[in-house]
Amino acid sequence: MNVTLSATLAANEDIERRRRAGERVLHLAFGEAGLPVHPALRERLIAASEHNGYGPVAGAAALREAAAGYWHRRGLPTDPELVVCGPGSKSLLYGLLLAIGGDIVLPMPSWVSYAAQADLVGARPLLVPAPPGEGGVPDPERVVSAVLHARSQGRDVRSLLVTLPDNPSGTLAAARTIRRITEVARDLDLTIISDEIYRDLVHDTAAGFLSPAELAPERTVITSGLSKSLALGGWRIGVARLPSVELRDRLLAVASEIWSSPAAPVQQAAAYAYTEPAELVERIDESRRLHGTVARAVYERFVRAGVRVDAPQGGFYLYPDFTGLAYATSAELTADLLDRHGVGVLPGHAFGDDPRALRVRVATSLLYGETTERRLAALGAADPLELPWISASLDHLSEALTGLNTARHAPGRLVRAALVPTPAAG
Amino acid sequence: MNVTLSATLAANEDIERRRRAGERVLHLAFGEAGLPVHPALRERLIAASEHNGYGPVAGAAALREAAAGYWHRRGLPTDPELVVCGPGSKSLLYGLLLAIGGDIVLPMPSWVSYAAQADLVGARPLLVPAPPGEGGVPDPERVVSAVLHARSQGRDVRSLLVTLPDNPSGTLAAARTIRRITEVARDLDLTIISDEIYRDLVHDTAAGFLSPAELAPERTVITSGLSKSLALGGWRIGVARLPSVELRDRLLAVASEIWSSPAAPVQQAAAYAYTEPAELVERIDESRRLHGTVARAVYERFVRAGVRVDAPQGGFYLYPDFTGLAYATSAELTADLLDRHGVGVLPGHAFGDDPRALRVRVATSLLYGETTERRLAALGAADPLELPWISASLDHLSEALTGLNTARHAPGRLVRAALVPTPAAG
Repeated sequence: MNVTLSATLAANEDIERRRRAGERVLHLAFGEAGLPVHPALRERLIAASEHNGYGPVAGAAALREAAAGYWHRRGLPTDPELVVCGPGSKSLLYGLLLAIGGDIVLPMPSWVSYAAQADLVGARPLLVPAPPGEGGVPDPERVVSAVLHARSQGRDVRSLLVTLPDNPSGTLAAARTIRRITEVARDLDLTIISDEIYRDLVHDTAAGFLSPAELAPERTVITSGLSKSLALGGWRIGVARLPSVELRDRLLAVASEIWSSPAAPVQQAAAYAYTEPAELVERIDESRRLHGTVARAVYERFVRAGVRVDAPQGGFYLYPDFTGLAYATSAELTADLLDRHGVGVLPGHAFGDDPRALRVRVATSLLYGETTERRLAALGAADPLELPWISASLDHLSEALTGLNTARHAPGRLVRAALVPTPAAG
Repeated sequence: MNVTLSATLAANEDIERRRRAGERVLHLAFGEAGLPVHPALRERLIAASEHNGYGPVAGAAALREAAAGYWHRRGLPTDPELVVCGPGSKSLLYGLLLAIGGDIVLPMPSWVSYAAQADLVGARPLLVPAPPGEGGVPDPERVVSAVLHARSQGRDVRSLLVTLPDNPSGTLAAARTIRRITEVARDLDLTIISDEIYRDLVHDTAAGFLSPAELAPERTVITSGLSKSLALGGWRIGVARLPSVELRDRLLAVASEIWSSPAAPVQQAAAYAYTEPAELVERIDESRRLHGTVARAVYERFVRAGVRVDAPQGGFYLYPDFTGLAYATSAELTADLLDRHGVGVLPGHAFGDDPRALRVRVATSLLYGETTERRLAALGAADPLELPWISASLDHLSEALTGLNTARHAPGRLVRAALVPTPAAG
């Protein structure tokens, strides 16, 4: 085993230390939703505070039934018996790697913990680049050749992961790409793990959302949770929708030996959330608007500074590309952004990207404010960009980007790359 | 991977199903504390219900400081920086297996999940029998030969686990055995994992408690939690006390990729619990008395029925030995106890014992009642054994034991083995 503290969590702790020491740091490194708990969820937690039994490993019946309803309303009829709850979708993803076994195909770049988890279970990830402009899905044609090659070398490749919409890029793969990757998974007999934790935060709700589970229900696991849509990261609750009793049983076996069950009072609050009462639907609507508005504003700051970046489509992330600046690695760029410009981001190499590619992940969700009052004000604002703390942060970012450009372009090769919109091609 | 649902959790779910179907089942199979949450803990959870951030992977500073104080008051000065919290000590134990690596020496019998976890991480446990009457510690002299032999075969043995007091046997190893196993661990350069989750439930508080961490602080990890002493199993909170920054960092790396942190509101309640306020000390005192009284009463029922069993010293378990009855395996005995006598226990083989040895684990904590009212009555009773639901359960048990004896002794070989007190020898 050769892992270090999860890159996102480590960066978060470093930035918090600097802030406590009085440094002015713009925290764009951590994928926390940055919003308060809705009072209705607190009420449900409080009402369930006497729940102290372990309960079923799969999760309380009410929670599994509610999660099944959540998927049913999204065109995915779901047997509550095939729902497994865990203390965060991170734990469920880890458990799935053990339950499925073998090696896994991951998009490159992809969320920091997928590859680290594969390492922990002794699997080797096959990193396959995502198509341009469509993060979160390994390029289907490249998957075919990568898996066939790996298998010819004796490797046992059993699964493939997609993130819809994506972290780190904030983009959503096109329906035709989802269709193609699903066909490829079927041809290669791969289980698909579809991480849909940002699904309810796709900015344009009219755009439609296609899950591989609609196309290949026999081989697709969906993982999700309430950490992003309802800002419950610290409550640790995730849900998985399994394609078969066999894989469900294997996951439960792993779960029973590693975590037993999510915290019982949290399960009751989550059961309420997954029934999607109007007050929580409204909260998610407000959150989606806020995430979209701020992510787009940050996107525009990057574009104005001449940095190439895909327009965000979901969640609260951007993945700008600083090609042209005089840094050797994304880690060097990240360190400089933090030390000299007070901007904390994560280097692309933490997401499996080429260390020399000058790409970084920018999380925009901690711009809403550091107090509950400010966060609620941001949620309720007609134009959150006019709130002084948000506009000041955006200006801090622009200033840093200007500073970077000035300081780090080699004379005579100032490349202010215009934004190149990338096609949503498969 | 070849694991099934944790034996304890699976048995629990099976028995619950039978009860819902109207069967009269005495539930002696599950190690849940069987008591309500103390109102002060509910209040702290409620007060922390707005906590929704992930927080540090190691756990909130207040919780780590409180846990350090808890150990300090037990003669173990502790740096809060060397405390790591997790969603249950089960998760922490799993993380430690990954963080330490290599194979592990386990006492035989021992808690169901140790060996299953070792299997999940690809380690091979070395099962070494506990000395007679001293469950939870592998016989020190046998450890030496087992480890030297395994190493001569090229195996990489790195750690050794003890359970103080023990699950399944309910006994507590003698101080001289703890001293000897600590010397052996030092000689063999093994990390000691000391699972002390039942420590505060040693029945005789005057008896003293020796942790290997007092003798070999440089190599001992202690794991504990609030699932047993304060009945918070369903809240999922555990703590570990690490011997070094290096092992702490490795554990945090694993934790950050598998579970992130325990539920934030639960951490705040646990922080309060570990300061050991008078009201919770009193609750633990009451719980200890109840567990001790009922475990001893059950012990006496076994003794009266002529079943060999060690007297319980801590927690709420017994490990009777039915040698002499006409069953081929402990699984067969367990199935018959459940199907024909309505008594649910776990077979010894689930704890790594010889499948043909007719030993079973009996948990006594679900005898206190099935409602909060009954459980509180049991906690407050001058003599809980006089409560009708408890005395009826004890009678049900005696009846089952008589029925077993009558039905299953081969004619002419009725062995009503007298209790043989076992010496607390090292």
